[in-house]
Amino acid sequence: MSTAKSATDYRALLTAQIDKLRALNSENAPAAAVKTELAELNRLSDEFAELSVKKGGKIQLKTPKGTRDWEPLSMSLRKHVFSTIERVFTTHGAVTIDTPVFERKEILAGKYGEDSKLIYDLQDQGGELCSLRYDLTVPFARFVAMNPTEYGNIKRYHIAKVYRRDQPAMSKGRFREFYQCDFDIAGAHDAMVPDAECLCVLVEILDALEIGEFTVKVNHRKILDAVFAVCGVPEDKIRTISSAVDKLDKSPWTEVRREMVEDKGLDGAVADRIGTYVQRRGGRELIDELAGDADLSANARAVEGLEDMRLLFAYLDVYGVADRISFDMSLARGLDYYTGVIYEAVTAASAPPQPASDAPAKPKKGKDDEIDESTVGVGSIAAGGRYDNLVGMFSGSKKPDAVPCVGVSIGVERVFSILMQRIRDAQARGERTSVRPKEVEVFVMSMGDGLLLERMQVAKQLWDAGIKAEFLYKRKPKLQAQFAVVDKDQVPFAVLLAPGEWAAGTVRVKQQLGKDEAGGDKGEEVPLKDLTSYLLERISALNKQ
Amino acid sequence: MSTAKSATDYRALLTAQIDKLRALNSENAPAAAVKTELAELNRLSDEFAELSVKKGGKIQLKTPKGTRDWEPLSMSLRKHVFSTIERVFTTHGAVTIDTPVFERKEILAGKYGEDSKLIYDLQDQGGELCSLRYDLTVPFARFVAMNPTEYGNIKRYHIAKVYRRDQPAMSKGRFREFYQCDFDIAGAHDAMVPDAECLCVLVEILDALEIGEFTVKVNHRKILDAVFAVCGVPEDKIRTISSAVDKLDKSPWTEVRREMVEDKGLDGAVADRIGTYVQRRGGRELIDELAGDADLSANARAVEGLEDMRLLFAYLDVYGVADRISFDMSLARGLDYYTGVIYEAVTAASAPPQPASDAPAKPKKGKDDEIDESTVGVGSIAAGGRYDNLVGMFSGSKKPDAVPCVGVSIGVERVFSILMQRIRDAQARGERTSVRPKEVEVFVMSMGDGLLLERMQVAKQLWDAGIKAEFLYKRKPKLQAQFAVVDKDQVPFAVLLAPGEWAAGTVRVKQQLGKDEAGGDKGEEVPLKDLTSYLLERISALNKQ
Repeated sequence: MSTAKSATDYRALLTAQIDKLRALNSENAPAAAVKTELAELNRLSDEFAELSVKKGGKIQLKTPKGTRDWEPLSMSLRKHVFSTIERVFTTHGAVTIDTPVFERKEILAGKYGEDSKLIYDLQDQGGELCSLRYDLTVPFARFVAMNPTEYGNIKRYHIAKVYRRDQPAMSKGRFREFYQCDFDIAGAHDAMVPDAECLCVLVEILDALEIGEFTVKVNHRKILDAVFAVCGVPEDKIRTISSAVDKLDKSPWTEVRREMVEDKGLDGAVADRIGTYVQRRGGRELIDELAGDADLSANARAVEGLEDMRLLFAYLDVYGVADRISFDMSLARGLDYYTGVIYEAVTAASAPPQPASDAPAKPKKGKDDEIDESTVGVGSIAAGGRYDNLVGMFSGSKKPDAVPCVGVSIGVERVFSILMQRIRDAQARGERTSVRPKEVEVFVMSMGDGLLLERMQVAKQLWDAGIKAEFLYKRKPKLQAQFAVVDKDQVPFAVLLAPGEWAAGTVRVKQQLGKDEAGGDKGEEVPLKDLTSYLLERISALNKQ
Repeated sequence: MSTAKSATDYRALLTAQIDKLRALNSENAPAAAVKTELAELNRLSDEFAELSVKKGGKIQLKTPKGTRDWEPLSMSLRKHVFSTIERVFTTHGAVTIDTPVFERKEILAGKYGEDSKLIYDLQDQGGELCSLRYDLTVPFARFVAMNPTEYGNIKRYHIAKVYRRDQPAMSKGRFREFYQCDFDIAGAHDAMVPDAECLCVLVEILDALEIGEFTVKVNHRKILDAVFAVCGVPEDKIRTISSAVDKLDKSPWTEVRREMVEDKGLDGAVADRIGTYVQRRGGRELIDELAGDADLSANARAVEGLEDMRLLFAYLDVYGVADRISFDMSLARGLDYYTGVIYEAVTAASAPPQPASDAPAKPKKGKDDEIDESTVGVGSIAAGGRYDNLVGMFSGSKKPDAVPCVGVSIGVERVFSILMQRIRDAQARGERTSVRPKEVEVFVMSMGDGLLLERMQVAKQLWDAGIKAEFLYKRKPKLQAQFAVVDKDQVPFAVLLAPGEWAAGTVRVKQQLGKDEAGGDKGEEVPLKDLTSYLLERISALNKQ
């Protein structure tokens, strides 16, 4: 450590470094050279800020805003949810990959439209500029573009954390660090076959997770484009009008129309024509209706989109999931990279509370700049679509859709909230739940004189047989203290060591049925040499119950 | 997107922002205010740099320096390794937690000594200053300090990525993003009982991973401290002399002595005395030897340390692992927070190649500032120790060791390299390996006329029964194209649909024994309604082989 610098020292160092930077910039030094000196300025400023913090006193014990710790019970639930999802993914033949948590900044640039401002950047400490991944789709496309021969045709899943500097609403499962579970199919295949499988996977997962009723909304970018063209939306307004349409799940049509006309300067008659389309939803009959629409049926993109939708519903029928899917013409989705079918799953709990008036539901800010969480919904629980040109954006191939892709992403944070609430409710009713933080099967205890080395010996014998076992890390523990652990952790079996029995080569095994019943039963005496096989049998019998 | 700015625009914006910063600093504005304006300067500089990049042309397709993608085969191996490690952890009764990938910067400050410079910082985008986690131990201590009542007594494991801006040597498993697998016991327990279990866990894991011969070196901070005191090392030189001693695994004593005397100004006679201690290694007999040393036995810390070591070896004996452990007096470990026993596991492959001369093995730099990987070792494969005051550093409790801890961390990257090499060797010999990227059990194919909807129907029937199944995403695939996938992915069963048989309600099931044997066997005709149970039986029989 260097000698401590004073605040005055830092002021002088900062000024000198600022002047250096100013001179470089005036001389039109290359941007990279400016960045290098700026990195040194950042370092000085950080050191200076730390000095102020140290003076300020003690460390604030918390996780960064919008992030959380996962305590043992949450982790057990997370394992359960991930293994359920992973089982569906692998049943459909997917392999898995992983990518670094940060990417070179240029990889993420220009992929997320207005949401790019939510990307976390790493500080420039010399070397490359990097950002934390914002989703798993862009890193996947980068991976495929880097390995076109080996992985230009791949069905992969990826379960990992992503990062967004959004306003958190933690009780609603909206975090800055959160998990996504993605399933994507890359490669040139016959129309809508992979798309239908993605929707099938989505329905199978939401069913398997048992989170209650859900709806999967589906739309098609080509149909949306055609609607805007047919209604006469000027080219430069399409994106902003599209994002207004996307709000129809939260706001009434009158409000969306007002936004289009008043805020975005759209002609009122054009808005009204849009309204006749985007408020429609349904199933196959809606496809027929639209195919019969004179304007749309004259538009090539509409015809392509409707043909896709017809195929999609035929395939969804075979998969027996068509009745879970709603063709919803208001679904637009913000991401720049979608090119075909798009979809989104919502649960009853996903929607925000309805505002009393027709006014739009704007999140209210509470104290400490946090959103008032009672006023926001969690949005979709899963979403996805077809993105045929994203890999091409990286590989720079002449054929932009050389590696077409389609995929679905499950946002599991909301699933965690729903299921955790169910566990807490069960606990409150005093019920034993299948998801438990600790899986210990056997607690090894002494009935007198400590017998520490003997307990260690027995534990090791059990560990070597794969039996989950613990003992108290005390030389001479009290019997009560040992039973307290057994009760607290709901350990099903206790192995008791008593000096006399131990000398005779036996121990006592006692099944724990709950605190009240612990008193009378003295357990069964078992020779030490038979203990492992005896317990394996009892545990296996218990697990079958 | 705002209108594009020119380089000249950026120069002017940068100058203006620099001037603003200079003024603030001259006025002695608070460090936080300086940081806020600096953040804006960073943003401008980034935009400017991006402008230069865009002009430069196309995106570089690569992962950030020192990071890697995990392709499907690596992921299968990773799953296998993690489940092996996790099985040992949970067998010992550990629960698991997770923490955010980044922490508030002040949490990490002052924990890693000189290595603090390797910490990755997030850019200040307004809000808190954060850094990527450098290990899992400090976040664990922060978690325990935040939740002392609930988790002041916990045995937990944590398998997750950590980040270090070190010089990567990727072929040796040294990355900037890499996994740690940690097992720690927090709470006041009787001396050395948890410590012995950590070493037992370490040995069980390295055995279970089947990575070959290994040695676990153990030392004790109190004994090291006593040695330095007894030899007469001045207080202010202890840390730097300790780090010189730690190099004895890579350099001969003559070089370490030279560093102490010439580079660090230690008296030659003092160095010689140190040499008589730190070159010793052994088992229990070394404890007895040191206890008989007049100088050490007069030093209270030495007596405490030796008493700990005696207990430790007694417990390791009961666990049957004492012969895997070497008391090595040269082991020092760099981290600031260790207070008691320390340990490190090395494999034969961990050591760097021996230099021809007595000269120290310094990593040579090759092109592109990368280390010449042939000249470096990978260091330890696992390490850990007791850190009784780390939680207290956070909680600020009056008793610094209110929550004493001990733990071990497995560095699995090296394990991955060793095991992946073994898989590649087996593949080269044409052997089927148990770790496979893809687990598909059944491929559903048509023998004419496409039968796409029918293949979908069969696949869905199998998926619903949990059978891993795929089919080709083509309306009318060629038979050869379908068999090509079966061969490539080594899918054990093919289900064949032929128009005639399908009309009669049957399909054909064919076990795939390899390319050559595919010709003759026509498979078995199975009624569609019995297909699921038939396949479940066949798959189960196959897995038992």
